[in-house]
Amino acid sequence: MKAVIATAPGGLEVLALAEVPDPVPAAGEVLVRVRATAVNRADTMQRRGLYPPPPGASPVLGLEAVGEVVDASQAPGTGPAEGDRVMCLVPGGGNAELVAVAAVNCIPVPHGMDWESAAAIPEVFITAYQGLVRLGRLEAGQVALVHSIASGVGTAAAQVCRALGARCIGTSRSPERAAAGAAWGAEPLVVTDDAFADVVRQITGGRGVDVVLDLVGARYLPDNVRALATGGRLVLTGLVGGRTGQLDMGALIARQISVLGSSLRARDVDDKARIMGEFAAWAVPLFESGALEPVIDQVRPLAEVAAAHARLEADAAVGKLVLTVP
Amino acid sequence: MKAVIATAPGGLEVLALAEVPDPVPAAGEVLVRVRATAVNRADTMQRRGLYPPPPGASPVLGLEAVGEVVDASQAPGTGPAEGDRVMCLVPGGGNAELVAVAAVNCIPVPHGMDWESAAAIPEVFITAYQGLVRLGRLEAGQVALVHSIASGVGTAAAQVCRALGARCIGTSRSPERAAAGAAWGAEPLVVTDDAFADVVRQITGGRGVDVVLDLVGARYLPDNVRALATGGRLVLTGLVGGRTGQLDMGALIARQISVLGSSLRARDVDDKARIMGEFAAWAVPLFESGALEPVIDQVRPLAEVAAAHARLEADAAVGKLVLTVP
Repeated sequence: MKAVIATAPGGLEVLALAEVPDPVPAAGEVLVRVRATAVNRADTMQRRGLYPPPPGASPVLGLEAVGEVVDASQAPGTGPAEGDRVMCLVPGGGNAELVAVAAVNCIPVPHGMDWESAAAIPEVFITAYQGLVRLGRLEAGQVALVHSIASGVGTAAAQVCRALGARCIGTSRSPERAAAGAAWGAEPLVVTDDAFADVVRQITGGRGVDVVLDLVGARYLPDNVRALATGGRLVLTGLVGGRTGQLDMGALIARQISVLGSSLRARDVDDKARIMGEFAAWAVPLFESGALEPVIDQVRPLAEVAAAHARLEADAAVGKLVLTVP
Repeated sequence: MKAVIATAPGGLEVLALAEVPDPVPAAGEVLVRVRATAVNRADTMQRRGLYPPPPGASPVLGLEAVGEVVDASQAPGTGPAEGDRVMCLVPGGGNAELVAVAAVNCIPVPHGMDWESAAAIPEVFITAYQGLVRLGRLEAGQVALVHSIASGVGTAAAQVCRALGARCIGTSRSPERAAAGAAWGAEPLVVTDDAFADVVRQITGGRGVDVVLDLVGARYLPDNVRALATGGRLVLTGLVGGRTGQLDMGALIARQISVLGSSLRARDVDDKARIMGEFAAWAVPLFESGALEPVIDQVRPLAEVAAAHARLEADAAVGKLVLTVP
């Protein structure tokens, strides 16, 4: 089959659509004929050699895929059947014509949704759900601060807040990208000099926010802690602004604040299955009613994966970069 | 009444047993005739001007007291009755002959226990319970790392671990104090140069610990994170080793680690009441059966409060410094 690999750690030039052996489903896995997949920041970091895949994961790039189950013989009875349309999270291997995936890590495509739209869901909406709802325990009437609001995770998080009845303040370093979040219910906030805590406290009446969903890391850590209300939760899902930061533990103790590391990729199959099952029960009806909608920046064929990496690395995309698999 | 105050921020010389007006219970409060109270590190910090009492709290020192309810007229029906023997958490005012305390922040003295023993319970055992059980979600078969194992909180935490069926590794910078924790079931670990993560990983078969209960703060932050297993929880309850530390957020994300700030004093009355109610239901029967036991370093009369502060600040105490109120 054809699949996207990185021939060595490096720039866009190391990406190749190569001929590799078809994956063979192991016990508990189904084989999926991929119809669409997507690019995530983790893929660009893996390409540069900064984010090695977990042990046992495919060297093929891609953390998500949607398509039809073509072989369910290794997972009889428990998961999706042959012909079912599924959305999958994988620790690698999604940017390909075929992918072998744990049956319990497949959830149904919302009824009536096309492949390109479905491919814009799994990573970003499950990351937003896991961060805001499961870890962050965000509730109706509470306030969330979501950084990188125009990103895939940001546009998904704004919609998760709206569906919960929570207020969402959405940041970006670019005025245009901050404003883009308004389409999904976020209040725009432009961040300059990594300083935002004072204005967040001001626009929340001095109280601060209940949850911060952060993809930036070190650069934002001091202001993230300062922006939190008593009992607040800082959920860390990315580190584009550095890995090691200054933590004010006095503030954590005085205001009973939690800092929570979140990742999907590093989790084992069963842990992911629990998260995906909860997510599907909550979100699939909301996608079917239109309360949640996939946000697509561009759709390209799999062969143009390098253009998608470039756009993501330039912080130019609003929403997801989807790749179709002919 | 007589009560302990600090006449100005400073050393032991600012402590005074002064004549102050009797407290008057507000709505929802009971008046307690104090029989015994205790000294905590927070009192020594407050004396030095480093830990101001929360708004509205008494300027009298002391975060806990035990005694008999002598006036329940302002909290009819809901809490303890006049004559009941109670253990109380207060945001200030415990080191005195009388204290007015929210009725819902009183729990019963275990049956048959003397006043000095009861006074060694509230702050340290509730801190250990809140940190290990409620925030840390420590379970039977899991492993906890408890720093300052010979301290009041440390000796309480070792017993909470034992009662849960969890393993406890207890640290101190002093070999004698590390060894003292063994009396309450902790495995001693001497910490030198603030480095302990490698040996903790080694003695847990490379896995790391599920929960760290930390009173040190900045100095221990890097090794605390390194010592945690996947899914581990670092509970911060003190900052004797500095307030701002270097946080490796990459480790938090990769291993889904949580850092949780914990305090009792800053919480409101209802929040404290929930914690104390859960604690009493779990712990009072265990004190009555002998599975948990108060750990007393010294008992002195209230007038000798300065000697208790001195012993605490010298890190000389094993367990609690109790003050009797004649």
